[in-house]
Amino acid sequence: MPMGEVKVIGAATSLFSARVEWALKLKGVAYEYIEEDLRNKSPLLLKYNPIHKKVPVLVHDGEPVSESLVILEYIDETWKENPLLPEEPYERALARFWAKFSDEKCVFGAWGACRAEGEEKEKAIESAHESLAYLEKQIEGKKFFGGEQIGFLDLVVGWMPLWLGVMEEAGGMKLLEAEKFPFLHEWAQNFIEIPLIKECMPPREKLANYFQASLSYLRSLATNKP
Amino acid sequence: MPMGEVKVIGAATSLFSARVEWALKLKGVAYEYIEEDLRNKSPLLLKYNPIHKKVPVLVHDGEPVSESLVILEYIDETWKENPLLPEEPYERALARFWAKFSDEKCVFGAWGACRAEGEEKEKAIESAHESLAYLEKQIEGKKFFGGEQIGFLDLVVGWMPLWLGVMEEAGGMKLLEAEKFPFLHEWAQNFIEIPLIKECMPPREKLANYFQASLSYLRSLATNKP
Repeated sequence: MPMGEVKVIGAATSLFSARVEWALKLKGVAYEYIEEDLRNKSPLLLKYNPIHKKVPVLVHDGEPVSESLVILEYIDETWKENPLLPEEPYERALARFWAKFSDEKCVFGAWGACRAEGEEKEKAIESAHESLAYLEKQIEGKKFFGGEQIGFLDLVVGWMPLWLGVMEEAGGMKLLEAEKFPFLHEWAQNFIEIPLIKECMPPREKLANYFQASLSYLRSLATNKP
Repeated sequence: MPMGEVKVIGAATSLFSARVEWALKLKGVAYEYIEEDLRNKSPLLLKYNPIHKKVPVLVHDGEPVSESLVILEYIDETWKENPLLPEEPYERALARFWAKFSDEKCVFGAWGACRAEGEEKEKAIESAHESLAYLEKQIEGKKFFGGEQIGFLDLVVGWMPLWLGVMEEAGGMKLLEAEKFPFLHEWAQNFIEIPLIKECMPPREKLANYFQASLSYLRSLATNKP
């Protein structure tokens, strides 16, 4: 197993960081975790991700990889044990399709609904519901998106059990109602009970404070617009 | 070599469709091409890509794959000859990173600059220039992004030789100046001279009419806003 020096530049509040740590833990790869202050970005982050200046960055033997879905693929190809992606090309394509869908439509859909106010909020909630309904269909009848074990798509959707609840609270709304999305609910409970996932979740209170503060800041910007 | 029935639902004006056709041609995979009317979407498209309702869709033995980057990976994993992605995990990660960057920053950056007017246009052009400068650095000193042969990233950046020029014309601007981006320029000339690429480019006039019409339509919407 090629080990080398592995570092993750991340942020405890970032759902995109968490999936990278989960993947490394699943693979049994030891790594050094470096917490980044997103409000005062370090020279290290700017050196390793000069283009997007975002976490997470995986640094393997001094070589940086950024963009969390690209990092997951890199991890899967570098450390072969406990594969994240399925073996069959068509199954792999589906996992990649839904991962992109989840990031583009569900993460940003939920965050959009969280931020929106008034009439816009209703529309944003409806749109997030539609996106979640597609994922609900994908998990119906399965324990995990990866089947009996968690895989690539579980890690990508893994923000839901904690981050989605925090966004709902901060945004004063409900998106993942248990009656509407029973299968996603059950999946979330199964997912969060996995020890290596659980041990690598940020404290809920810290996350809640962070989202509340971000939301207040964004709203103050909107209010003070010239 | 697994063949099966391969169909591409595409549009001659879509740069995302073109890359899928190029990939199949590179692999030597015979396929049926079905031209989609994007202004009057067919039941076939809605059946095979009900979520995004967009081209391209690859249908292999009745199973659909959508999202052009996901399709390219599927093609590369299904038909192994003439690999698109490099072999090394780190090189693969770089190709995926730059492909995402090119789509998100360069394609949409150029289209944004094409659409923008007035003060906004200057800013949009500057931003597109910055993104193109990153790609310029990636191709410096190489014949193709893939090295001596074209690969994944060449196909993804392959919209530039034709589509970018058409956007420049429609938007009354210049983005890829030869003096500013000599290496991208040289790459574009090498790329478009490859027979299988050349034979699968839409007629320039058709493309120019399409972009001009799209732009006029979008501007009429903006003018008629309540």
